[in-house]
Formats: sequence, C-alpha cells, structure tokens
Amino acid sequence: MRFGADYYPEHWPEERWETDARMMKEAGFNITRLAEFAWVKMEPREGEFDFDWLLRAINILNDHGIQSVIGTPTATPPAWLCINKPSVMRVNEQRQQITFGNRQQSCINQPEYLEACDHIIEALADAMDGNDGVYGWQIDNEFWAPCYCDECQKLFQKWLQEKYGTLQALEAAWGAIFWSQTYTDWRQIPLPWATSGAPNPSLALDYRRFISDSYESFTKRQIKLIRQYSDKPITHNFMGISPDEINYQQIADHLDFASWDNYPFGSADPAMIAAGHDITRGYLRKNFWMMEQMSGPGGWGEMSASPRPGRIREWTYQAIARGADAMIYFRWRVCRSGTEQYWHGILNHDGATNRRYSEIKRTRDELLKFEDLLEGTTVKAEVAFLNDYDSRFAFRYQKSNSELSYVKTLVSLYKGFFENNIAVDILTKDADLSGYKVVVAPAHFVLTKKRAALLKDYVQNGGTLVMTYRSAVKDATGLIFDEPLPGLLQDVFGVVVKEYHSPEASEENMIWGSMGEINGHTSRVNVWLDLLELRGAEVMAKYDGGFISYGVAITRNSFGKGKAYYIGTQPESDFMITLMDAVAKDAGVTLGIPTPQDVEACERVGEGKKLTFIINHTEQTQNVSIPEPCTNLITCEAIEKSLTIDAYGVAVLK
Amino acid sequence: MRFGADYYPEHWPEERWETDARMMKEAGFNITRLAEFAWVKMEPREGEFDFDWLLRAINILNDHGIQSVIGTPTATPPAWLCINKPSVMRVNEQRQQITFGNRQQSCINQPEYLEACDHIIEALADAMDGNDGVYGWQIDNEFWAPCYCDECQKLFQKWLQEKYGTLQALEAAWGAIFWSQTYTDWRQIPLPWATSGAPNPSLALDYRRFISDSYESFTKRQIKLIRQYSDKPITHNFMGISPDEINYQQIADHLDFASWDNYPFGSADPAMIAAGHDITRGYLRKNFWMMEQMSGPGGWGEMSASPRPGRIREWTYQAIARGADAMIYFRWRVCRSGTEQYWHGILNHDGATNRRYSEIKRTRDELLKFEDLLEGTTVKAEVAFLNDYDSRFAFRYQKSNSELSYVKTLVSLYKGFFENNIAVDILTKDADLSGYKVVVAPAHFVLTKKRAALLKDYVQNGGTLVMTYRSAVKDATGLIFDEPLPGLLQDVFGVVVKEYHSPEASEENMIWGSMGEINGHTSRVNVWLDLLELRGAEVMAKYDGGFISYGVAITRNSFGKGKAYYIGTQPESDFMITLMDAVAKDAGVTLGIPTPQDVEACERVGEGKKLTFIINHTEQTQNVSIPEPCTNLITCEAIEKSLTIDAYGVAVLK
Amino acid sequence: MRFGADYYPEHWPEERWETDARMMKEAGFNITRLAEFAWVKMEPREGEFDFDWLLRAINILNDHGIQSVIGTPTATPPAWLCINKPSVMRVNEQRQQITFGNRQQSCINQPEYLEACDHIIEALADAMDGNDGVYGWQIDNEFWAPCYCDECQKLFQKWLQEKYGTLQALEAAWGAIFWSQTYTDWRQIPLPWATSGAPNPSLALDYRRFISDSYESFTKRQIKLIRQYSDKPITHNFMGISPDEINYQQIADHLDFASWDNYPFGSADPAMIAAGHDITRGYLRKNFWMMEQMSGPGGWGEMSASPRPGRIREWTYQAIARGADAMIYFRWRVCRSGTEQYWHGILNHDGATNRRYSEIKRTRDELLKFEDLLEGTTVKAEVAFLNDYDSRFAFRYQKSNSELSYVKTLVSLYKGFFENNIAVDILTKDADLSGYKVVVAPAHFVLTKKRAALLKDYVQNGGTLVMTYRSAVKDATGLIFDEPLPGLLQDVFGVVVKEYHSPEASEENMIWGSMGEINGHTSRVNVWLDLLELRGAEVMAKYDGGFISYGVAITRNSFGKGKAYYIGTQPESDFMITLMDAVAKDAGVTLGIPTPQDVEACERVGEGKKLTFIINHTEQTQNVSIPEPCTNLITCEAIEKSLTIDAYGVAVLK
Repeated sequence: MRFGADYYPEHWPEERWETDARMMKEAGFNITRLAEFAWVKMEPREGEFDFDWLLRAINILNDHGIQSVIGTPTATPPAWLCINKPSVMRVNEQRQQITFGNRQQSCINQPEYLEACDHIIEALADAMDGNDGVYGWQIDNEFWAPCYCDECQKLFQKWLQEKYGTLQALEAAWGAIFWSQTYTDWRQIPLPWATSGAPNPSLALDYRRFISDSYESFTKRQIKLIRQYSDKPITHNFMGISPDEINYQQIADHLDFASWDNYPFGSADPAMIAAGHDITRGYLRKNFWMMEQMSGPGGWGEMSASPRPGRIREWTYQAIARGADAMIYFRWRVCRSGTEQYWHGILNHDGATNRRYSEIKRTRDELLKFEDLLEGTTVKAEVAFLNDYDSRFAFRYQKSNSELSYVKTLVSLYKGFFENNIAVDILTKDADLSGYKVVVAPAHFVLTKKRAALLKDYVQNGGTLVMTYRSAVKDATGLIFDEPLPGLLQDVFGVVVKEYHSPEASEENMIWGSMGEINGHTSRVNVWLDLLELRGAEVMAKYDGGFISYGVAITRNSFGKGKAYYIGTQPESDFMITLMDAVAKDAGVTLGIPTPQDVEACERVGEGKKLTFIINHTEQTQNVSIPEPCTNLITCEAIEKSLTIDAYGVAVLK
Repeated sequence: MRFGADYYPEHWPEERWETDARMMKEAGFNITRLAEFAWVKMEPREGEFDFDWLLRAINILNDHGIQSVIGTPTATPPAWLCINKPSVMRVNEQRQQITFGNRQQSCINQPEYLEACDHIIEALADAMDGNDGVYGWQIDNEFWAPCYCDECQKLFQKWLQEKYGTLQALEAAWGAIFWSQTYTDWRQIPLPWATSGAPNPSLALDYRRFISDSYESFTKRQIKLIRQYSDKPITHNFMGISPDEINYQQIADHLDFASWDNYPFGSADPAMIAAGHDITRGYLRKNFWMMEQMSGPGGWGEMSASPRPGRIREWTYQAIARGADAMIYFRWRVCRSGTEQYWHGILNHDGATNRRYSEIKRTRDELLKFEDLLEGTTVKAEVAFLNDYDSRFAFRYQKSNSELSYVKTLVSLYKGFFENNIAVDILTKDADLSGYKVVVAPAHFVLTKKRAALLKDYVQNGGTLVMTYRSAVKDATGLIFDEPLPGLLQDVFGVVVKEYHSPEASEENMIWGSMGEINGHTSRVNVWLDLLELRGAEVMAKYDGGFISYGVAITRNSFGKGKAYYIGTQPESDFMITLMDAVAKDAGVTLGIPTPQDVEACERVGEGKKLTFIINHTEQTQNVSIPEPCTNLITCEAIEKSLTIDAYGVAVLK
Repeated sequence: MRFGADYYPEHWPEERWETDARMMKEAGFNITRLAEFAWVKMEPREGEFDFDWLLRAINILNDHGIQSVIGTPTATPPAWLCINKPSVMRVNEQRQQITFGNRQQSCINQPEYLEACDHIIEALADAMDGNDGVYGWQIDNEFWAPCYCDECQKLFQKWLQEKYGTLQALEAAWGAIFWSQTYTDWRQIPLPWATSGAPNPSLALDYRRFISDSYESFTKRQIKLIRQYSDKPITHNFMGISPDEINYQQIADHLDFASWDNYPFGSADPAMIAAGHDITRGYLRKNFWMMEQMSGPGGWGEMSASPRPGRIREWTYQAIARGADAMIYFRWRVCRSGTEQYWHGILNHDGATNRRYSEIKRTRDELLKFEDLLEGTTVKAEVAFLNDYDSRFAFRYQKSNSELSYVKTLVSLYKGFFENNIAVDILTKDADLSGYKVVVAPAHFVLTKKRAALLKDYVQNGGTLVMTYRSAVKDATGLIFDEPLPGLLQDVFGVVVKEYHSPEASEENMIWGSMGEINGHTSRVNVWLDLLELRGAEVMAKYDGGFISYGVAITRNSFGKGKAYYIGTQPESDFMITLMDAVAKDAGVTLGIPTPQDVEACERVGEGKKLTFIINHTEQTQNVSIPEPCTNLITCEAIEKSLTIDAYGVAVLK
C-alpha cells in the first residue's frame, strides 16, 4: 500500500528537503506527488528547461524509500506565456477574460497554450525517463473549468457540424424553432453565455458535452506525449461525487488508475465521502488512490474548521475500506506564501511535528500490521447506482425546483444503503448490470434509448430497478418526451406520472407508507411531487395533504422476472432508509452488520480474504454487535460478541 | 365572448394541427393567438418570406370556428439578423451587450433592427390581408426592456435637446450643478449606467420617459405598417400592476383594445390580480382581453407550483368579473424544447387531455350558459385610483426606504376597497374625475402642476381625495419642492409634513385611531412615517411610540365642497380596510355585499343588466349572505338568503 | 471653538445667501466649508475660471462673522474633462471603467487628470490669496477609491521595481513560486483584479500600499500648489475607524490638522463613534475637527432613520469631549436635486428653521457658556491602541474566518476601556510608547521586525501589552512566519499557539476564567480560537467544550519589568469589559468614574483645567454618582453627589 503526502519542494529551501524526507520516512511514507504546479520552476523562460532541482528532490525522496507521482504542471502556465500571449486565457460565462494571478486560467482549446503544454510535458517526460524514483504520472489537476472564448465557440460549431451534419438536423434535435432560434450558418451558433440569458437547454447540454470532449482530448494529448518516454501508470485527481462541470468518465477511460481529492470541510456527511469513494472506484471498476486527503484546515481567504483529533485517521480508514490502495495527504506542509497560505496540510508553517503528524504516523503504524491482508482485496457490491453526467449537465440549467439537485437526490437514496451497511457501486457508463441485485437510477433526467433498453432488459431478466422523480424526462438531445413520464419506461414501472408539482418552500406535504416495512410510516416530502397513475404497479405510499392528497407517491411493479420501484418524491432520511432496506431485502441483497447511525461497516474481500472495517463517524462512543467472533487487526484483540468504538474510532475485523 | 389559448403550431408537426383544432373546438374555443415568436419561420433568410404554413394553420383553426390574433414577431429577431448585424443587440445597465440566445434582446432604437421589423411586419400584414381567420393583431410581446447602447444615448441627447432647448434649461431643471454635473456639449450627457453609480435622479427620470417614448414610437411604427393592409383591432399584451419599466399608457393610447398576461405564481394575492385587471381596464376605459392566463406551472430553470384544482376557473371568473371580454390561456401545449420547456400550459408535453383541460372545458361550458348576459356590461366604479408612471420611475432610483414600494403602497390602499367589495377604476392619465366619489393617489411622488390643479379642483367641487406619504414631493423634472410637503397641495389637505422618518426594519412604531370607525383601533406602522402639523385638518390617528409619539399620522380636511385625507404612514391591512370603509361611507360610495375575507364580490353592469360574481379565493368553503333572492347562473339554482361556495369556487348571481 | 455647517451656495439662488448667512449667525456659527464639489462652477470650460461667485459667497459669510474652509474640488471633475478625456476615469476591480455621473470617478494617477487638478487648484489658491474670509483648506474629499487601470498597473510595476530592485528579490518576498507566479519582466505583474480570482496575498498587500502612496503623492501635490499662495491650515476629512482602503496616516502626515466625517446611521454603537474620534486625534496627536457631523437623515436611494431629538447634541458633546475643536454639521440645507437629494442636513428642502436647527442652536448657546474653558485642553490617555493599516490591508484578502474582522476585534477590546471610562489613544504609526501604562495591539496580523522590537522594549521596560489572536502572523511582505505564532513575540507572551481553529458559525465554544476578576466568569467565544501552549505564562482562561477543551485561551506573562496578555479568542462584551478592567487595574491605570452601561464619562484636561463630560447614549434617564462636588457648566447648577441625565442628555462638570 502507498502512503504519503503531496509535496512541494519548490516552496522550501533545498537544505530542508533532507529533513522533510526523513520526517516522511519516520511516518512510514513511501509516496509523494510532486511538480504539478511548478511549470515556471521547470521552464523559467520559454524553451529554457531546468529539471535538475526536481531530479534532486526525487533522488532525496527515493533515497528514503519514497517514490513520486509527477504531475504535469499545465494548471499553472507561467506569466511569460499568459501575459505575452493573452489569448490563452479563459473567458468566463459573463464573457470576461480571466487575468493572470490564480490557476486554471487558460483555455485548454487555445492552440498557443496547447503548444506550450506539449513542450513542457515532453521535456518533463524526457527528463524523468528511466528514473526509479518516479512511480507514475498525474495529468494536470482537478479538471473543471469551462471556457467561453471565441476559439471554443468556433470548435463547438465544428463539433456540432460533425455531430449533426446539417443545420436542419441540429434544429430538429434542439427544437430550435422555439423563439426563432434556428440558424442559416454554423458560425451563428452561440455558446450558452450568461449575457444571453437562459439558453436553449439542448444547446447547453451539447456545450457541456463539447467541454467534456475537449478535456478528454487534452488528456489524451498529454498521455500520448508521456507515453513516448514512459510506460508508468497515469492518473488524474478527480473531486468526488459533487462536481458536474465535465464528464469525469471520459477522462478516466484513458487512465491506468483513478484517484480523487477529499476535502470534508466542517461537518461533512460521511455518506457524501463514501459516495466519493464509490464513484471513483466505479470509473475503472477497480481500486483507486486518494491523491489529496485533507489533513488540516483549508481555505483561501477564510479558513475551514480544523479536523478534530481522530478524524484524519477516520477518513483514512473509510477510504481504505472503500477501495483506496493509496493514501496521500494534502499537503506535507502549508506554504508560507501565495493564495493557499491558509491551506494547511500535515505540518504547519513552522515545519515541526504536531498532533496531525502524530495521528497520521499512528495510523500508518496500525496499517502496516495488516497491510498484506489488503493485497488483492476490493469492495464487492450487489447494488449499483447509475451516475449520469448528461442528466447532471441538464440539471445545471434546469434545476426544476430551487431545492432539487441531482447530488442531493442521489445521496438521499445512497444513504438508504449506506446506513444499512450495504455495499454499493456507482457506475457512470453503461455496463453489464446482470451481476447486481438492485440498480438505482436517481433523477435520471436524460435517458437515451440505449440506456432505457438496458434497464428494461435488466428488470425483464430478474433485476430490481429503483428510479425517482425527474427521471426519463428528456431524450438524448434534451427534448422532453411527448408521451407521459417516465417516458420510455412506463411499462417497466407500471405507472405514468399524471401530474407533477414543484412545491413552494413554505408548503407542507406528507406521504404515508402502506406496504411492508414502510406501512404506517410517514414523512414530510419536498423538492418534487409526482402524482402517479397506476398501470399495473402496487401502491407503496400515498400523499396525505396538499392538493394531491391520496394520490400515489411510491410504487412497486413486477415486470418480467424483476421488480421496478418508482419513487415520486423525496422523503426524509429515516423513511428512505427503511424503504431501501425493504427494497434490498425483497431483492435478496446480502445485508450488512447492523450498526448505530453513522457507524459504518464496510468489507474488503478477495481470494479467501474478508476484512470488515467498522468506522465511527460520530462524536460519541458507540457499541457494535458482532455476528461471529473475530480479531480486531488494529489492536490484535479478539472480539467475542460486541465492540466499543471511541468517537471517530475504527476497528478492522478479520 | 372570446375563449381560447395561445397556440404555437410551429412547435408541432403539421399532422397534429387538426387534432389540436378539434380538441380546442371541443373545449369551446373560438380564438387563438399565433405567430408572435415565429419570425424565423416566416422569414427563414433575410428577405425570403414564407407564410404558407401560417395560412394553413389559420385555415385549419378557422375551419373549426377559431379565429386568430396575429402577433408581430419582433420580440424574436432571427440569428441572421442578430449575429450578422450585432449592433442591433441591446446593451444592459452594466454596459454589457446582450448576446443571441433568448428573446427581447434587440434595441428598439437601432435602425437596422427597425428596418428588419418593417420588412417582416409589412410582409406579414400583406399575407394576412383579407383573411377571415384573422381576428386582429398583437404588437410584439410584453414590452419592458430598456437599452443603454450608444444609439440610445445619442437619441436620448437629441430627445433632451428637443425638450429643453438649451443646456442651461436642462441644468436648471435637473439641478445638475450638484456634484459639478453640468455639460458643455449635449454629447456629454450619459445614460444612467450602473457603471456610474447612483445617477442624478432627474436624468434617470427623463431616461425612463425617453425609453417610454421609444416604445411608443415603435408601437406607432408597427401600427402604421399594419394599417396599410388591415383595419382589424390591434392590441398589446401588458403585464398587470407590477411592472414599471415603461409607461404602458403611452402604448395603450394607440391600441384598439388593451390586454394583459396574468401569472399568479404560488400564493399570489387576489387583490394584486384584481388590480391588474383594473389597471388594464383603465388604460382605455373599457373592457379588455386576457391575452395570456396562466394555466399550468411555469418557469425557465425552476418550475412554479402547479395551479391547484379550481384555481384556473377561479382566475377566469375573476377576470371576467372585472371586465375581461376574452380569456386566452397560455399556452395550448407546453413545448418540448427551448428555454420554456418547463413553461406549461393547458396540455402537457404528451398532448393528451388532463385535469387542467377538463377544468377549462367545464368553465367554458358554464360561461356559455350566460354569455349573452355579459354582452354590453362592464365594471362601474365610484372610486378611482391614480397610477402615475413618473412617480414609479422616480421610485426605481429612490425607494426612500428599503421596504417601501409604489406597488405595495397602492395595493395596501386598494385592498381597503377590494376587501369591502367596492369597485375601483385605476387611471393612468389625467381624466375627468368629477364622476368619482373618491379619488386615491398613493405615493404620488412626482406631481405636476397640472395634476395638482386637477386634484384641487376635484376636491373644491365636492370630491374626496385620499393621498399618502411620499406624495407631492417632486416636481415634473424631479426637483424636490422648496416648500413644506405635500408641496402644491398643502391647502387641500390642511397639513404640512413637519418631519419624516424612514424607520429601520427593527423599529416598533404604532398608530392609534381617534375618529369615527377607526377610533380606538391601533396598528403597527412601518415603511415611512410622516409627522403632520395641522393647518386646519382634523386628526384621525396619532403615533403612539417612537420619537414622534403623539404626533399626527392621519388627517381629514374639508376643502371647498370636498374632503381630503392624508395618510402619513402605512398601517396594517385590517386598519386600512376599516379606514377605507370609513372614507367610502363618508363619501357616500355605494357599498358592496359584505363577504368573508378574500371572498370577492364584483359586479358587471350594463343597460338594465347586473351580474354579481362571487369568487372564493380561499382554500376553505365559505358562506355569503345575499341581500335579495337571486339565481346562480352557473348552477341555475335559486338563492334565497345565502350561498355556500367551495374552496376556489364561484357563483354568478343575477 | 469653531461651529458651523458645510455649505453649498452654488445649489441656491444668490438672493438666498444673505438669509443663509443670517440664519447661521443666529445659530452662533463662525465657520463653513465651501466649494469642494464645485469644480464646474469655478471652471465652466477648460481653462475658463470664474471665482467671482465664490468670493461673493465668502464675503457675505465673512460679513456675518463666518469664515470658510475651502475644499479643493478634485472629487468632482467636470464632464468636459471626464468625457472628452475618458482615460481619466477609474477602473474598478472587475476591470470595468467607471462612467461619468457620480463622484470620485477619476484615477488619481492619470496624468491628464492630475494636470487638470493642478490648474484648478492653482487658480483657486490664487483667487483666495489674502482673503480674510478664508480660514483654511481641505484637500479633496473622503479619499477611498482604489483604481485598477493600465496606468496604475504601470506605476505599480515601477513602484515594485523601486522597492525590490530585482524580480528575484520580489519573488522571494512574495513567495511567488507558489502556483508558478514568478515573472520574467516587470511588465507582467498584474494588479489584484477580481478577474484573476484570489491573488497572491503579498502582491495584494503591496498593491494597497501603492494605492496609499498614490494618495499621499496626490495630497502632497495639492498642498504644494496651495502653499505657493497660502499658508493657512490644510486638512483632509477622514472617515473614522471603519475604512481600510488606504492608509490615512500617510495623508495625515502632511496636514496641519486632521478632521473627520461622522455618520452614525441608525443604532450606531457609541464606542464605534468614540473610536472614530480617538483614531483621528491620534494621527497628529492633537485635537481635530469634525468636518461633517450628520445632522439629518442621509442616503442616496434609501434614507436612513432621522436622528432622534437630542442625538445631534449628544454627538456634538461626545466629539468635543474626545478632542474636537470644531463642529461642522453636514449640511446646511439638503439639496433639491442630484444624487444626494435625500441627504438631509440641518435645514430641509424648504429652508425654514426646524427642530434640528433649534437643537443645534441650543447646543451652541450652551457651549458658548464655557467655550473659553476648553481652550488648551485635550484628552490625556494612559492606554494606547495600535491601529495597523498593513494588517487591515492583509485582512481585506484574508478574513481568516467569515465573522472575523479587524475593526470588530479592535472595537471589542476598545469597549473594554470605553465602558470603564478609561481614556484611550489610537496610534497608527510607531511612536514612543513609554508614556502609556497599557498598549493594546488587536489582530496585529502583519508585524514588522521594527514594530516587534518596539513592543518588546516597551514590555521589557515595564509596559503592559495586550495582544490577540491573528497577531504576529505575517512579516512585512506578507509571508507567514516559519516559527510558531506569535512569531517574533513568543518570549514576550510566554506562549506559543499550538493549534488554531476557525469555528463554523454553528459551533458552541466556551471559555472559563480562572484568575482574578474573571475567575469563574464564562463566555461564549467565536470568530477564532487559538490553543495556547505555556512557555512561562500564567493561565487566565481555558476553553470549556469543543475539541480544545481545557486548552488555554488567555494568558498573562511577566517579561522584563512588564506584563503581556495574550487573548486567543473573542469573548462576549461583558467578559471583555471585566478582563480589560482587570488589566487596567493591574497596570495602575487611573480608573474612570463608574457609570451605567453606555453612559460615557470623558475628560478634557489642560494647564490646570479639567472638564468632565457625561454623555448618556441611551434612551433612558440615567443616574450617575459623582466622586466630588462640582458644577454642571451647562445648567450652571451645583452637583453634590449624583446627577440625573435625560435620554441622550449630557452634563459638563467642572
């Protein structure tokens, strides 16, 4: 297992590097990430390269048993590029050109920027060629930034021409006749600038796909250059479950492994973090790395709360439990200067050991006790969530209700499994679903015919499908279906949405469960209310109050050999947990160990191996009953029947 | 009576049109509005016209007994115009040029835009010439958009030069010496851009007048072109009581009839809607049309709440009760594409009948029972409210207090009559007031000498005038009077404002009534506090608390043969209702039927006819006592003494 | 003593001037300020000067015994300059150029603007030469506006080159290597535009210093021109304790006396006002003028609450008590036109006497009774607060916590003395501290080596130093120290900050006092929590709850002959008042008269003179016990033991 920190030797005097390497070694580190913001240090002037300092840093680290992931520094183009060739700078939605002074300020479609990237990447890859201290590569950093410059507009027009062939085809796909928005020339097509007001939603959807394609090209271009010199593993650091600026899957498809950056500011929901692990593991269907794990207060102008004692360890175990094969903390030591002067890492500005260093060292020591047992293990799930970037792109422009969001909907359902300790895969692209007992498709707003057919087959053949409000609303180009919702899946669910209602914040609406485990349970509902008409499905819950009183809210349908649940509104957490428990049991999903709320139990399994991680995400001591005697690998104690876990404490059972 | 929907045949395959026409006919429709956003469909390329599709649509509708109002499509100029001639695009207050992609994005003063408008309007009018299916015309759509482009600045300077003649005259009228803002050249005069910060208020007032004049010219230009081919009635669709971007009266003066678009999102106040009807009826002092009546959830990115069952019918009756001669619902069917993909109408995307269609059909069936009785009837009011756009323009830049608004002030007084079921006219231009027993001038901030004289005469001759705080503050060019407020009307009211106080939100201020019906009544007051000094008036209410304790807040004065009430602060609704009831009684206004709160009673009268509409705007069943036996024309039942009305229910009594 | 109003004769017909002068005289006025926004009246066209009107106004006033302070009119350049030479207009942080229409819209670094300023100032100074009616000069008005134009960028680059010599030195001082922000040419260095996102904090700090230097140059340039013609006193009107756009001290250094503008809108904290007086008195360590004292409701689009009866008098006495030698009310009469049409002064638009005029006249009459006793008196303080603009500049970009601010921190400590009636000096530049018994350095974020040495010496030699969280964090160029906080002062305080915590708004954190007067006292704490490790200091308070439970929050250390208090968090007001009382007593500070809360007691002393001002800032009548028999100079009554003071009332005791 890899364990280490993100390290910026260029921030510190060279005399200090040896000390840093020694302190890292003492904490059991064997990996760092380097160089991803150091373009100007490696190319101080256009075409003048200097990698000696980096090689020295790599060597010192390697001498201490620490390999390095090398980041391509393309997120921080130097002033000599940005200011001498100002066209490389991004343009934002308001059509303002970004100025030099922060990071990720360049347009990844600008030829001059791309050329400069080529030069630095090639020179860097060449310099690293054959270096034992180099473990692998990271492409750029946390991709997110869309651009609205003239070059992007031109390329978007070309992209559309390639996609649609004729303006007539594009106009039909977009329904562009609305408000007279058809075109007589491809060059007339705008980007969805804020200066236009709310755009045609289909145009906006295609724009987000174009931006994703642009980032995919940028990734492939970088990989191709690196591969001329290096066959070491290549990754990119994603950002978990929340971002929806670009389609991460398209990036992941070209990587050797996926990784992500976890910043649980303040009182972050442990289920949100868990979902971040699961989505990252899902991109390539295998274990992943933590490339940046928050290890101190962060922030630019304002500082976030400091992680309470025990929480860095808690987050570390949670990551490993969910498939992390490497744990890299951000960052080794907070910089004394720059925009991230407040973004702390393990060490403070003073560079001395502290309670966070000690906590990490202790965690590493524990892990070393059973590291070998993790080898070859991963998470095995019987439940899959579908994550759909097209839907997320569409919601960016059409929230539907001010309180509705894709992520909140997903996490609301996800918690139904998380709190029941049922493992989940989050899948972003079409895959064989036959191995899953339950498939959950939250707010699957945009539904292609292909995906619809796949889901139908899945249920037909015995699968259990769970879907929610605002699903199957739009086709592949963003047109709303001209048949009752849920569009292509009416027969699968045995319902149609007779009417929907986007409630005002002040409204009081309730549902009342009437089947199985949720019988008699009630919940406030908000965000969205679908009123269902039965076409063969059974009623699971009805509305009780509001103008759709006694209307149907949640249903179950038998279709082929399988079952399909339609959840027409968003109930509160307790109701959802009970409901998903019922779904899981009904589908024969293997149930998890019962634990108190926000105490997570998660398994990593492999060839004859099974490790159960128990993680207490609460501030209170908790008790967990254990189904069979086992050993806590951290304390090496035998556990008979139950286990007491401190606040933010963990246990690893074998 | 006309009854129908706004219809967009260009959104749907031509095969569907026949079905739509049949379904409309089945619901009793006899009118649609067409074409107002279909410029590009009618002129796909500059100078290439195609009206065949429109004529086919008109014919199919006409074959089903449905005539069409044709909208000029100037709110949606095509890409070939907007992008090829970018100067036609509007510039906003921040000096950003609007880009193509929404609607109403052109500057109506740009010569190239106007020329293109001329061509499409002339071609359209020519194509419609002599067509039986055409009922009449609508000019553009919901005028509102000011522009801050160079052309507007140039024309504004010219407008000022024509108005003032010399810079000296302008500077005197504006008090431009303040902060050294006099000019040595007309070309120096800016628009009130946000990039300048808070402008000279007189400049800003003149700018709003200039924009109103520009829209008036635009309207006249369109009408002139249409009149070359057609003598059918012409209208424009206004937006009710709230907007104050331009002076609607100036537009209305050139129309054959007025119409408006009513969108009571969420929990809209029925008095606000009623005021919308009354102001629209007031522009031309005759009955009006509902050109767009909300009939489903609306919104762009977020969807508003769905109208509860019964509410579309409720709104329909309220409109008719207050003088609507036509009811057109927006829109026939929600579009599958475009920015208004969420803006529902009667039918959903699936095009099938639904509960909203049924409710509208039922309403139409009811109306047909007594439609002939409506013929020749209208609302007759003994009370007039004065709506003053100059004052509204001035308040845009000078709210006076963060909680103060012209519309809130107007509606606060209006409710005093609305809840007492006393009919009201809302008049926007100077008119003979002698027929009114009460005239109310809320927040009449800007007061011309002419208007002041008119009001003085009115009271002198026996009228009753009600005025409020922030009235008679500014002269015609926006200078504040250099005599005590209420400026030119001190003698009419028999008071002067000794001091005024703009309260902080946290303050507690009270008044205490001391005369007649309000004797002993108290109310919290906020927004504004005038402290009055008596110059002959009687005290009606005093302040009780705050630093102007025991100061005078509300007075009544006898002036000539009439009376004048000055209301120096904004009391709560109950107090105001009692106060206006007292004013009305004192003035001998015919009182309305007493009804429970938010149950409206409104009469339409004509030559020997009187229909009383009772409309329950509440979610509860209500009982109303009836003064004399009558018949409910909807149910054809005889009513003896009282009437029970369901939630959102209505009755029409004869 | 000087007493008067800000007067704008150019707003009124010349016939009125005599009346104004007479009314001023009747109120006992002997000073006005004139002309500071009248550029265009004095130079109607470029190079055409007209001072005749101004001389006539000055003469009329002087004939009534009223002298004038002449403001240079550079805050309101005329349209002929701004529009004909548009490059003179400021550019804001978003890189938008300001347009003509308000004030302070020019860049004070633009050569064409400076040239125009030179001409008007020189001509004005020449015209005023030898005029008896002229008392002195005010430079421009309320400096604040930073500019981000190309000229400023060029000058900033030059400024940096002069400061650092080489790019290498600059990069080291800024830690510019972070995110690759080093430069190959001085011309690449940006300003901290909002279009770049959060900037390098050291760049931003230097930018604020550059802007301050620019304003200092502008001030010097004006003074130099005036001094060619006049040796009368020159001032500038500052804005009290809150502003932190520029370093006021740099301006003050070139003035003959300081003055400020006090606008206590709504329910302003009397301690904030008091601090405004003390900081202004501190710039030149002597008495100051009130150049604008709010005397009516103010505001542009919205009007503030009207000053309650008695409050203008209350504010007047408070100013005098704290060292004001002149009281000039803003403004004589509210203008009928322009952006400040709502900004009232003494007289309303009608120009008649009113209750505010009467209150001011009464106040003047009272003051005349003992004016001679004020001669030669000022405030003498044993406590000094350090006000540090570098720290304030740095906090602009790095608040640290959303609720933390420099001013709130300063005022929190200041109230500890204010409520105990202990006089305070607020010092902005390094000074001999040996005369002070206590020095307080709140949130002294940026700490130069020189200032650190000064403070160390001060304590070493017996002084008492109080410092807070977020002090001694950054060095002179904004780098965070690479040693534990409080950086250079660890030994002085005998503590290091082991860890800090920026709490979330929802957190509950407490401290619990354990020494002397605060023993057993508790308080909620927020904003920031330093966890202290003792290195010799004694514990005064510990945390009680949260993750740093039982950690140390407040300490006292003996160092040399003195004492040093470190306050690691922000307690509530009551706790702070008790704590500062303890500090003061411990340091032997002379204690003030005990008064009820928000009743201020303040002394002006001189050669054998001592006047005690008692000011009731509350709405209730209050009783104050008097240590020894005295006379109330206002009523001429003898006071034996105690005094009753009305709401907003005052007493002056001798």
